[in-house]
Amino acid sequence: MSWATGAAYKDGRIMPVPEATIPVTEWGYRRSDVTYDVVSVWGGAFFRLADHISRFRASMQTFRLTPRETDEDIRSILHELVRRTGLREAYVAMDCLRNRPPPGTRLHPANATCTLLAFAVPYVWLMPRETIERGVHLIISSTPRIPEICLDPRAKNFHWADMTRSLFEAEEKGADNPVLLDLDGNVTEGPGFNVFAVTNGVVATPDRGVLEGITRLSVIELCGKLDIPCEIRPVPADELRQADEIFISSTAGGVMGVTRLDRRVLGNDRPGPLTERMREAYWRFRKEGWHADPVTYDLAA
Amino acid sequence: MSWATGAAYKDGRIMPVPEATIPVTEWGYRRSDVTYDVVSVWGGAFFRLADHISRFRASMQTFRLTPRETDEDIRSILHELVRRTGLREAYVAMDCLRNRPPPGTRLHPANATCTLLAFAVPYVWLMPRETIERGVHLIISSTPRIPEICLDPRAKNFHWADMTRSLFEAEEKGADNPVLLDLDGNVTEGPGFNVFAVTNGVVATPDRGVLEGITRLSVIELCGKLDIPCEIRPVPADELRQADEIFISSTAGGVMGVTRLDRRVLGNDRPGPLTERMREAYWRFRKEGWHADPVTYDLAA
Repeated sequence: MSWATGAAYKDGRIMPVPEATIPVTEWGYRRSDVTYDVVSVWGGAFFRLADHISRFRASMQTFRLTPRETDEDIRSILHELVRRTGLREAYVAMDCLRNRPPPGTRLHPANATCTLLAFAVPYVWLMPRETIERGVHLIISSTPRIPEICLDPRAKNFHWADMTRSLFEAEEKGADNPVLLDLDGNVTEGPGFNVFAVTNGVVATPDRGVLEGITRLSVIELCGKLDIPCEIRPVPADELRQADEIFISSTAGGVMGVTRLDRRVLGNDRPGPLTERMREAYWRFRKEGWHADPVTYDLAA
Repeated sequence: MSWATGAAYKDGRIMPVPEATIPVTEWGYRRSDVTYDVVSVWGGAFFRLADHISRFRASMQTFRLTPRETDEDIRSILHELVRRTGLREAYVAMDCLRNRPPPGTRLHPANATCTLLAFAVPYVWLMPRETIERGVHLIISSTPRIPEICLDPRAKNFHWADMTRSLFEAEEKGADNPVLLDLDGNVTEGPGFNVFAVTNGVVATPDRGVLEGITRLSVIELCGKLDIPCEIRPVPADELRQADEIFISSTAGGVMGVTRLDRRVLGNDRPGPLTERMREAYWRFRKEGWHADPVTYDLAA
């Protein structure tokens, strides 16, 4: 069989992705008691793999999930998965989920072991390439993001009901994607991406209520390299509504320009100049090997 | 092989429970884009099966999940699962989860089909029988419940991170279980149960921010039968703290008395008289066939 469609890891074994399954009784599914991370491979190299693994470990600690694999094990597993597929552009996910406590023990999460699952598949774009080219159409969702006090958004999780509901609202309004506000009316994030507002040449992105995205971090670093001022602070919805430019960032797509927000058309309905500069810089730096961790495809080499 | 440990249903087929698995890539797991319900079988009969199926259907509609099975199909499947196991006391779960959109379509939930999964296993008690006998020890969690405006708690879901975190807090404080408040400081619910406060012979239970439990409904109906006044309205945390008695309700355990809340010992550290009356009535009515839907174990009969 061909591994080109993907490879997965579970319980010490590499297997085809469809064989990587979760019993219906496990709490990783049944209580969404799970954390995850996603890293990309582009041009045959992981991007910021160490950053992703250390964020993944921090998320596991937040949720008190402890797999038997060490960080070094995880790094080896992810490299082996990509090597096995031969993919030069890949989307690589790692999950740590809680099992059901064994029979005869009290039904408490402290009594359960955890399982590491990982898989590498061909690179996934958050949105179709044509959508990214023409510019993303966003709405501000009427559903607020689950608040930080209930669930720490820095620990990556599958609690996506607010996102899913917002995705349906975006669809109904003819948009591509939603952005969610917090309960105070500040911008948070969208399903799988961070948000940036550009006003008078200054980039602003929310400091709280959001996943601290690795691509977001890369944008913040690129702002430094390109001498673009970048502010990490609360971003009120109105600031986003009145921004000169908006762009979003994601492991699944990098930097993507936004051309519509609700009924407003930004610029000339094309991604703005600072956005394009950022997008170009992001892919150029990656091509040049910035934060790259190359995959060794031919073990005999 | 023996079916006595359980039987599961997926894609038109009955199988042993360990074979009922979910691919790691499905959104029912990966986005917790799933709803569920749980019904009990006691003395060979389902309890309020029609109520559970109609709540399950309402939950599916809230989340826009559509399996191919009708309500009548679901009823037949659940009966067949219990018949297959031969269990006279069973815990019967039904899930409807969203699959990943097929390759080549946009990654939007509207493009995905849904799968019905169900399983019957030996009856599960929310807490060990000894804990229920001595009375449950609760804490008020410092983590608030995910608010209604983000996620409708009437649509049963696996967004349990707030519950899981609270379970760890309860464990650390030497208690059995947590109860969570809403952002305004009113009582909501605990992991898998509704909460009732008894003050001067009057029962009160929250009207919002909670799952409308079927056992909760049964308690409300039993209050009517037993001439006990019952109020369904916001219950401030202080009312619970100062209550004469507290009890909880769940499909996994029925009516259970609470004897401690944080540092307070209620009554004489034994479930209170109204609580005991309610618990006795609950099991007596069930034994007498109240809302019962008997399982036909021997199809030849």
